Amino acid sequence: MEALAMDQKGYRRGSFQSATSDEDMLEIAGASMDFSMADDDPPLDREMGGFSSYNGGGMNGTSTMMDFLEEPLPGVGTYEDFNTIDWVREKSRDRDRHREITSRSKESTWALLHSVSDAFSGWLLMLLIGLLAGEGKPPDLKEGVCLAGFWFNHEHCCWKSNTTFTDRDKCPEWKSWSQLILGHGEGAFAYILNYLMYVIWALMFSLLAVLLVKGFAPYACGSGIPEIKTILSGFIIRGYLGKWTLVIKTITLVLAVSSGLSLGKEGPLVHVACCCGNILCHLFTKYRKNEAKRREVLSAAAAAGVSVAFGAPIGGVLFSLEEVSYYFPLKTLWRSFFAALVAAFTLRSINPFGNSRLVLFYVEFHMPWHLLELVPFILLGIFGGLWGAFFIRSNIAWCRRRKTTRLGKYPVLEVLVVTAITAILAFPNEYTRMSTSELISELFNDCGILDSSKLCEYVNDFNSTKGDDLPDRAAGPGVYTAMWQLALALIMKVFITIFTFGMKVPSGLFIPSMAVGAIAGRLLGVAVEQLAFYHHDWPIFSGWCSQGADCITPGLYAMVGAAACLGGVTRMTVSLVVIMFELTGGLEYIVPLMAAAMTSKWVADAIGREGIYDAHIRLNGYPFLEAKEEFSHKTRAMDVMRPRKNDPPLTVITQDSMSVEDVETIVSSTTYSGYPVVVSRTDLIISIENARKKQDGIVSTSVICFTDYCPPLPPSSPSVLKLRSILDLSPFTVTDETPMEIVVDIFRKLGLRQCLVTHNGKLLGIITKKDVLKHIAQMANQDPDSILFN
Amino acid sequence: MEALAMDQKGYRRGSFQSATSDEDMLEIAGASMDFSMADDDPPLDREMGGFSSYNGGGMNGTSTMMDFLEEPLPGVGTYEDFNTIDWVREKSRDRDRHREITSRSKESTWALLHSVSDAFSGWLLMLLIGLLAGEGKPPDLKEGVCLAGFWFNHEHCCWKSNTTFTDRDKCPEWKSWSQLILGHGEGAFAYILNYLMYVIWALMFSLLAVLLVKGFAPYACGSGIPEIKTILSGFIIRGYLGKWTLVIKTITLVLAVSSGLSLGKEGPLVHVACCCGNILCHLFTKYRKNEAKRREVLSAAAAAGVSVAFGAPIGGVLFSLEEVSYYFPLKTLWRSFFAALVAAFTLRSINPFGNSRLVLFYVEFHMPWHLLELVPFILLGIFGGLWGAFFIRSNIAWCRRRKTTRLGKYPVLEVLVVTAITAILAFPNEYTRMSTSELISELFNDCGILDSSKLCEYVNDFNSTKGDDLPDRAAGPGVYTAMWQLALALIMKVFITIFTFGMKVPSGLFIPSMAVGAIAGRLLGVAVEQLAFYHHDWPIFSGWCSQGADCITPGLYAMVGAAACLGGVTRMTVSLVVIMFELTGGLEYIVPLMAAAMTSKWVADAIGREGIYDAHIRLNGYPFLEAKEEFSHKTRAMDVMRPRKNDPPLTVITQDSMSVEDVETIVSSTTYSGYPVVVSRTDLIISIENARKKQDGIVSTSVICFTDYCPPLPPSSPSVLKLRSILDLSPFTVTDETPMEIVVDIFRKLGLRQCLVTHNGKLLGIITKKDVLKHIAQMANQDPDSILFN
Repeated sequence: MEALAMDQKGYRRGSFQSATSDEDMLEIAGASMDFSMADDDPPLDREMGGFSSYNGGGMNGTSTMMDFLEEPLPGVGTYEDFNTIDWVREKSRDRDRHREITSRSKESTWALLHSVSDAFSGWLLMLLIGLLAGEGKPPDLKEGVCLAGFWFNHEHCCWKSNTTFTDRDKCPEWKSWSQLILGHGEGAFAYILNYLMYVIWALMFSLLAVLLVKGFAPYACGSGIPEIKTILSGFIIRGYLGKWTLVIKTITLVLAVSSGLSLGKEGPLVHVACCCGNILCHLFTKYRKNEAKRREVLSAAAAAGVSVAFGAPIGGVLFSLEEVSYYFPLKTLWRSFFAALVAAFTLRSINPFGNSRLVLFYVEFHMPWHLLELVPFILLGIFGGLWGAFFIRSNIAWCRRRKTTRLGKYPVLEVLVVTAITAILAFPNEYTRMSTSELISELFNDCGILDSSKLCEYVNDFNSTKGDDLPDRAAGPGVYTAMWQLALALIMKVFITIFTFGMKVPSGLFIPSMAVGAIAGRLLGVAVEQLAFYHHDWPIFSGWCSQGADCITPGLYAMVGAAACLGGVTRMTVSLVVIMFELTGGLEYIVPLMAAAMTSKWVADAIGREGIYDAHIRLNGYPFLEAKEEFSHKTRAMDVMRPRKNDPPLTVITQDSMSVEDVETIVSSTTYSGYPVVVSRTDLIISIENARKKQDGIVSTSVICFTDYCPPLPPSSPSVLKLRSILDLSPFTVTDETPMEIVVDIFRKLGLRQCLVTHNGKLLGIITKKDVLKHIAQMANQDPDSILFN
Repeated sequence: MEALAMDQKGYRRGSFQSATSDEDMLEIAGASMDFSMADDDPPLDREMGGFSSYNGGGMNGTSTMMDFLEEPLPGVGTYEDFNTIDWVREKSRDRDRHREITSRSKESTWALLHSVSDAFSGWLLMLLIGLLAGEGKPPDLKEGVCLAGFWFNHEHCCWKSNTTFTDRDKCPEWKSWSQLILGHGEGAFAYILNYLMYVIWALMFSLLAVLLVKGFAPYACGSGIPEIKTILSGFIIRGYLGKWTLVIKTITLVLAVSSGLSLGKEGPLVHVACCCGNILCHLFTKYRKNEAKRREVLSAAAAAGVSVAFGAPIGGVLFSLEEVSYYFPLKTLWRSFFAALVAAFTLRSINPFGNSRLVLFYVEFHMPWHLLELVPFILLGIFGGLWGAFFIRSNIAWCRRRKTTRLGKYPVLEVLVVTAITAILAFPNEYTRMSTSELISELFNDCGILDSSKLCEYVNDFNSTKGDDLPDRAAGPGVYTAMWQLALALIMKVFITIFTFGMKVPSGLFIPSMAVGAIAGRLLGVAVEQLAFYHHDWPIFSGWCSQGADCITPGLYAMVGAAACLGGVTRMTVSLVVIMFELTGGLEYIVPLMAAAMTSKWVADAIGREGIYDAHIRLNGYPFLEAKEEFSHKTRAMDVMRPRKNDPPLTVITQDSMSVEDVETIVSSTTYSGYPVVVSRTDLIISIENARKKQDGIVSTSVICFTDYCPPLPPSSPSVLKLRSILDLSPFTVTDETPMEIVVDIFRKLGLRQCLVTHNGKLLGIITKKDVLKHIAQMANQDPDSILFN
């Protein structure tokens, strides 16, 4: 007897037992048949190819044998929400489409034009994404508003008004929020009023943000990168990259950043760029209709997002390659690069940083570093790793608490409380009052002669100054005050960020992490600098740091610290270093950055393997098959497949003896999301419905036949429903002895949804992506039931 | 009856027909068994796992069921020369090794240390490769020799002697070859003598180079990149990356470059770096014994090579990723980056360019470019594409002629003739007489006030000079002379390079290609500059190029032209742009570079799909499965597999009824390189030999049994040889209906050597990598027999 296997989604929840099968071993239709039958089997016509292009597994495009599915039925070949796509099938479909266009292009000029425009549509799409992402960078309303236009930030606003750079804080067009209401007073009363206004503005902004997110686009919260990673790996979350998410996220991002919460806009910008990419996909059939092609576009959009966020196009592409993307062929690399560049240049033409620079934090260091300085750099790396691991653990613990306790029911209250605490703690300390990116800029800055900030209040000795280069100097009182304030700011940032990331507002992690690292780095840098100044006769300094020399650049330490902390949290490596390299523009400083990033990653990995994004993916139970980790357990396919040893046998559809009613019973009485070996659930339902409507003589007792050659029936029986066209004739199979490491590799590299397990050519069972993920979780001593979706 | 399938290498050359099989359909042992047998089959013990770690397909490591193969036999699991490796098997072996070390690490401190050192050996290896590759950059002896040390180049030599930069040509330590013999004379006689000496030195150098290559290391010729690509894709060429190749290639590279031939040392440097990597692999068991792990190291070494060649570490990593590597996991990305950086900094600490710069051609442009300039940039792109396509066609045609006619028998004569022609043509023109990299430097250079070169002989108008920025000026007579000479140099380079690349000396393509482009670019740049100067009132110039403004930078045109030509020849994209970006260090000029590189690639691709490296791979018949090209034909697995429809049936080894003699007869009477479904040819031979020596009672008539449970034999018969341990119990299978596009994808992504084709669970045939390559060639209307190796 021929039998078709069905997918096993939710197998444990109860399996439908086939009425017809009682053998221990079943056979795969189209892939397995028992020996005695084989001789009677009609000879297979090799030139036949009678399968329409939407078949799973990608059958040939010609349609000589079609029974009734001449045209693809609408809905066949689509996926349900929160389901995994089949990469092999999607790619096959695109190749079929491409083949068809290419073959038609010889017929007419119009078709040729269509073929050419199809080939260039990818590039056009990249251009549009770059333009849109570059334009889409939201302004920063934290301190106040620019009367010349609310979309200008402070620097840009004042740069427009042609005042000199040193007076940039006092240009008339720029009004701080308190100024707008109260005017700029002096004394204790004005201070208290400003304090109050600061807290009230912060609460207003955050309230508005959380209400907008809650009311209009719940997907707009968080950084979005974990979900984008999951989507790019082949998962469907409808609306996550939709227009509402785009609009609401852009607006609430501005509000959230302006409310002074400890969050950044870089991660959410990646989400916004991906929304742009997804929406623009709708302009082109090629990308609208194919989930795999669309993911190529989204990878490029993510690159463009980072390019806009940091002004680092190459770093953006590498970020997309290393951190976000799953399927990243070389063609996508090239296109991502194009999109990232266009985005960067669009951004530059708007000139948001007011200094005609592309990058977010432009730094120029003059002095080389000494090999011995690697010791403090590695210390910063260790700090970054520890911070990263600590942050991930605490944040995940807090988020799990939010998910499981009553806390999660009051998102608005939570946001307001955290905002209030942040604002109250932040205002008294000037380093927490200023926006985080300004803080980082100031920390990265190498003190020049004219710098008036407190961090540059050194005891000047103009005798030893040569040109622009300042020697190491003794710290003045301003520096000591700044050190205390920075230390307090560090403690506050460390703790408040844990509670901020994961709230129901858009919140990025890059900037807060970098701030923590930059503060720690600057503190260490100044300490080393003073040590070198007062003790330049110590053996460790002799030979490279004599009196009056400029040996230590505290700004570089801040930068290295920022890289280390960002690396500890996200576990980025190459892309992190390249982004930082693009900020400084000098190859000189790659080695310190790399030493810190590597140390940080090793330290953090030793404490916990997962980066923050992977941890959040696991927290949410998304089906993400990590491509970076090696699966190294010695289990075999038979240990993972369903049914297990003592389970009831596999639910099957037989090949040519079941009636329409039988199949409908199976479909309605099981919760399995698909029958992927043969045909997806949707395809099966649509095909039967369609046949009932359009094909004469199909009733509930009609026998469904999945073979080419249907067995002769008695003349009185109703006409046969032939469904071979929706049959997957090339299912992926492995033997039961196949080691799971190979099975995992196959799932990863080919992007499978399911795989059949055979023994001696006969079907034993099935392994789905969910089974694989559960097995991996089990092997890592994690709860396998945390994998929620299929 | 159970039957094992054998590999089909050289199927057409004559197939050995099994004496036992006359069924049409055979079954795969371990994967297929007929239905009636299945019931009698002893129940499969799921906990058994009795297969040693070197089994193909990677069985579990425990050894409870071992018959005699307690220890891996020496030689089992190795590959023969000019054969393809099985990535799945190699990766399985490494995972087994890793598992063993990890499990042992809990036993003792020593084992723990071993485990830690094993984990860090990859990084240590990268460090060593970086150091060695950075040191290994050979000097340039073309013009003369540095008396302070022959390894210094001209600039470096004079930089050491503390003379000022403008006098750099006249430092006493530097002696040109003619000076060394003749002294520096004036007048016609001295000119002729110098001419003669130039030609004689060139002939001497090239003769020495070709004799060394021919005598000691035939693999040292060419650029090596096509072969490295093939090796990285999983092919074995013994000695190609050996120590002799390293030594001879380094020496002959210096000689070949010094002989004035139109070749560069950048490609060969990649080969040299890979040799270093391969040799260093021998220090670590992990990399010495595993072909897949070793290829990870080689990918990183290639990155380090480019990093050293251009001083572009990020570009080097991307070059390795985009152009050279096949299997490039993220871990390798990170390590490659490390190796490339170490190499770059080792290089810098030696300071070869004498200017404390890392990069080969340091350029600093001051003026932004105008959008309208994209028109000439795109023209340069078209030129680059045309040159690339023309070069590839002519060079391949010439190389094919060399292979097939008597020409190939006289490599020494060929080199001498080409050298003589090059030297005779080059000497009279100063732009061909200078070394090609100096020429490119000069062409990239933006003329300053103090530049004394002929290319900068403009009519100076000091009234309009503002600071360092020079306005566009009228060209003086020097520029016009230079234009003529450059045009002649261009024609010469274009033609002579075609005959040079592929000779029996080390020869890189990067520098000659860049020179062609740089000359063309500079010519166009000066033309546009003069046009803008004399016709600044034309509408196209109005608005951005008024009189006295500095609008056009001819050096930038040279750079764009160089990128375009290099792109046309190699079809590099992202890595090309990033390398160029690292040379200039400014994001500004990425857009022109990208426009030119993209145009060049499109134009060249329209004429011929293959880059020069792929063309040479195909010319040599290497089995390289291109990962970039989509396979888009609608053939199915059954159209590709052997045996074809009317072929004799598959040669098989039966599962438990063949005697040692029978198997030995099959092995000796067929030329098939392996029996990969079951076991490689080597493993089979070694196992039988070993069993004959060590196991009692194994004679020629002993029955070989590949099953767990051997059928009972009459007591008089000799003892059974159990070979289940060398059996691959998890062969990859596809159904006969599987579209070839999916099969190609599986081969590419999993790195398979062969795949079984089944119909209804029964073995129909086999597809090897060679079959796939032949099929792809056939579909592209190429000769399938050009694929030579398996």
